Amino acid sequence: MGAARLPSLTILRSPSPVKPWACFSSSKSTPFLPQSLRSRPARRGRTCLSRSSSSGISTQSLTKDDKLHGDPPKPNLDGSVTPRSVDFNAWYLDVIAHAELADYGPVRGTMVIRPYGYAIWENIQDYLNVKFKETGHSNMYFPQFIPFSFIEKEASHVEGFSPELALVTIGGGKELEEKLVVRPTSETIVNHMFTQWIHSYRDLPLMINQWANVTRWEMRTKPFIRTLEFLWQEGHTAHATPEEAEEEALQMIDIYTKFANEVAAIPVVMGRKSKVETFAGASRTYTIEAMMGDRKALQAGTSHNLGQNFSRAFGTQFTDENGQRQHVWQTSWAISTRFIGGIIMTHGDDAGLMLPPKIAPVQVVIVPIWKTADEKAAVLESVSSIETTLKTAGIRVKVDDSEQRTPGWKFNFWEMKGVPLRMEVGPRDVAKRTVVTSRRDAPGKQGKEFGISMESAELVNHVRQRLDDIQAVLLERATAFRDSNIVDVTSYEELKAAIAEGKWARGPWSASDAEEQRVKEETGATIRCFPFDQPVGPKTCLMTSQPAAEVAIFAKSY
Amino acid sequence: MGAARLPSLTILRSPSPVKPWACFSSSKSTPFLPQSLRSRPARRGRTCLSRSSSSGISTQSLTKDDKLHGDPPKPNLDGSVTPRSVDFNAWYLDVIAHAELADYGPVRGTMVIRPYGYAIWENIQDYLNVKFKETGHSNMYFPQFIPFSFIEKEASHVEGFSPELALVTIGGGKELEEKLVVRPTSETIVNHMFTQWIHSYRDLPLMINQWANVTRWEMRTKPFIRTLEFLWQEGHTAHATPEEAEEEALQMIDIYTKFANEVAAIPVVMGRKSKVETFAGASRTYTIEAMMGDRKALQAGTSHNLGQNFSRAFGTQFTDENGQRQHVWQTSWAISTRFIGGIIMTHGDDAGLMLPPKIAPVQVVIVPIWKTADEKAAVLESVSSIETTLKTAGIRVKVDDSEQRTPGWKFNFWEMKGVPLRMEVGPRDVAKRTVVTSRRDAPGKQGKEFGISMESAELVNHVRQRLDDIQAVLLERATAFRDSNIVDVTSYEELKAAIAEGKWARGPWSASDAEEQRVKEETGATIRCFPFDQPVGPKTCLMTSQPAAEVAIFAKSY
Repeated sequence: MGAARLPSLTILRSPSPVKPWACFSSSKSTPFLPQSLRSRPARRGRTCLSRSSSSGISTQSLTKDDKLHGDPPKPNLDGSVTPRSVDFNAWYLDVIAHAELADYGPVRGTMVIRPYGYAIWENIQDYLNVKFKETGHSNMYFPQFIPFSFIEKEASHVEGFSPELALVTIGGGKELEEKLVVRPTSETIVNHMFTQWIHSYRDLPLMINQWANVTRWEMRTKPFIRTLEFLWQEGHTAHATPEEAEEEALQMIDIYTKFANEVAAIPVVMGRKSKVETFAGASRTYTIEAMMGDRKALQAGTSHNLGQNFSRAFGTQFTDENGQRQHVWQTSWAISTRFIGGIIMTHGDDAGLMLPPKIAPVQVVIVPIWKTADEKAAVLESVSSIETTLKTAGIRVKVDDSEQRTPGWKFNFWEMKGVPLRMEVGPRDVAKRTVVTSRRDAPGKQGKEFGISMESAELVNHVRQRLDDIQAVLLERATAFRDSNIVDVTSYEELKAAIAEGKWARGPWSASDAEEQRVKEETGATIRCFPFDQPVGPKTCLMTSQPAAEVAIFAKSY
Repeated sequence: MGAARLPSLTILRSPSPVKPWACFSSSKSTPFLPQSLRSRPARRGRTCLSRSSSSGISTQSLTKDDKLHGDPPKPNLDGSVTPRSVDFNAWYLDVIAHAELADYGPVRGTMVIRPYGYAIWENIQDYLNVKFKETGHSNMYFPQFIPFSFIEKEASHVEGFSPELALVTIGGGKELEEKLVVRPTSETIVNHMFTQWIHSYRDLPLMINQWANVTRWEMRTKPFIRTLEFLWQEGHTAHATPEEAEEEALQMIDIYTKFANEVAAIPVVMGRKSKVETFAGASRTYTIEAMMGDRKALQAGTSHNLGQNFSRAFGTQFTDENGQRQHVWQTSWAISTRFIGGIIMTHGDDAGLMLPPKIAPVQVVIVPIWKTADEKAAVLESVSSIETTLKTAGIRVKVDDSEQRTPGWKFNFWEMKGVPLRMEVGPRDVAKRTVVTSRRDAPGKQGKEFGISMESAELVNHVRQRLDDIQAVLLERATAFRDSNIVDVTSYEELKAAIAEGKWARGPWSASDAEEQRVKEETGATIRCFPFDQPVGPKTCLMTSQPAAEVAIFAKSY
């Protein structure tokens, strides 16, 4: 088996003609469920990373009997992805199924991340890993089994997480003396270990990160957005002073923001959570909030200043420069596979997925076109040489030279899969030593360019420029969409009207937690954040007409 | 927090003066336990990846009360690592503790992989990931919760794995209807999904890999070698023909062999497992066997030809080119964090860890030496410029400019941590524009070179050559050690004598499974493999004096 194998991406050539998730309700937003949230208010801070509010979520069913038997699958893409404009939720599930991003696992609420979806996650990892290391963090790994007693040590933490725990009670055929929690997050076990590693101020700051799976027993699941098990990175740091911890929490939300804007082309709003929405165990939670294509908010990443909440619960202390024992000041921060759901719902259109070039597993797909055997030989030779040229230039390229599909089928297929740039090479192109390119972000003739030279330097230059353009256009579009859907409000009536229209409402807020809860119950919207970017001048609370220091953004959310 | 933080490796400057694992018995090899093995024979094939035979393993205790309170830790490295020559097991645990490779988790048998240990794992991942992708495999992710009923579908698989399962029985506060297995390996859930993705021969081969955590409820644990939870990669492939599956299984064991030899400098023996030692569910298991410093064998990676065992149990079928339904032919293959234990136990010496340059998180440590403030400024300026030069050349370099430790302390510390090359820069070196280097593999004067020019090209060239030399020397040494400890035997008496001396015995074997079991019970040695590299000529079974097709290697093992 010396020769390279067919890349697994080629399995994508046989899209399933059934809709494996068609059994999912493609329901419109279901009513908000204040009771379930009220029962565990302190959890919502971290919810960004697996759940938060609960509108518009489908309940999962098993699809294990949806297998095909008999004939090889027939291409049946026309009409198989519900247009986004018709039913956003159905579109989302269709895109995930047809673009082969993910599939359901056999256990309710679990997800299999397929190669095309996982490759997006790898690109997220590659970017963030470099940033984490540049800022002095080291990767490591903590066990996923946590003694149940640990979870109980920090009061608001146990209140937030205990309803959603998966518990191991049997090991090696025996009932365990103490139940083990399958980690929902690792602050408790991290602190347990930090107490053993931190002795003096010279051991600080201690700054680590882990890439891991986490488990939260969600009742309502949705692929990528909220699953029983998901993948994430969780950073944990300990510092000698509260100022340093605050600086770190801000540094990390800033890294997430840059990642969202510059790589995922998602123009997030960076801000601080309200007290009600702060993570279970944090003193302050910073968040990045993204507007999805249906205008609902997605909490796409969070960074928590944990203060001394966990260090006091676990006794994580150090001896300072004066020989005094002090509790450390901590942070934690995370981004999860939920982010992939955010990418899909920000950029996709009726035709399917649309991926920003910097995050796309395939940046350029080359579709060779021929009729005769002679043409085929000449075209494939040119295509192979173009492929090498682009790969050498560091461009992620895929040649679809399968014989089972027509070029037209391939155009639709790779469009549905969101590949930013398509290159067509036919016999006449070969004769002229040129190619045709088509942009995913500009359908039809508009995004099509003819007569692009095959000459290496020119071709690479063309591709790079187009990819840069597409990256920029996606961010611009999402920014314009977001900005046109945020309404400045000065009263509760205006807020209600904005939310009823499906928009985000931004207005001055200094009212109580109870008032915040009332807005949630009456409108389905929560405070997404107090944005860092604040208008200048005096402000009056939209609810109480009292002076307000800041504006808050209210929205329905995933 | 704009400036880069201190890298977390600097926490390594404060090694704990206690031995956190001192509570572990540093026992000599304990008697072999044939009963426990006999109760689940079919499991042993995969055991390489978390356990296998069971001699010399300590039972874990909690060390959570070993925390230091009060004074900052004092350097106390002298004598703190038990010399390898005195007690191999105590040395191994000391090295892991003092080099800060890992620590115990709060749950019995679990392990925290610390940054220095995890960085070795990242280097393993970086190499293998490229090889896997080059050979056409895609990464993806399967859920870790598997319905209990899945495990029962393949007869020998359930027999092998059921004694070691961790079971989730409670989720979201409720007793679950079906217990969930926390994956011990993923063949069952992979097949469940493959049935949904594989329809025709055009969907084959399907070749995937995942990097994941797995759980096996081991009773006897040892850091890296055998832990309740460990990290690994598991590859899974499906093919249209048995020949292709066999070719794939061989291709992957070949990749593991090259990795072991060329990167980890571990001269493994590649071979086939006996029927008794084959993985629970495989038709054939290929293995790489490494000789540790105490001459015990470590199964360091395996590749299984699964035949149609799982595809028949799960109904994983495809329609072939003639329209006939066929079961697919499969493989699976894995390397785990156990490999890190193998690196430690292959190359370490009395002074501690010794890392092959290609796998070392730090390849060069620079120790600046000064007395006066003027000297300090000049030395650190030179060191900083050297650091930049080496980093730019892609060399992993660490400057230890801490003021709390003497240069002598630092020399010992980084030697214990196994850094391949040390560079010393003092005021006289700066004046002469030269540096001094010391090789980890050649202690004292022997490995020391003076007057190496600071000039960039010359310095980089010197460092590269020394690192290459060290890499080669480590492999040569381990190969010579291995070869001098394999005895060719022609009778059972000779085999027993070789094993009693602690060596590996290689001899012709065509006896029964029962005879193989007898050898195990009487000597503590198992058949590690039938090596691919076979002596030519006719052979007579060492046990039965019947003709034998192959020689087998017998050894005690981890």
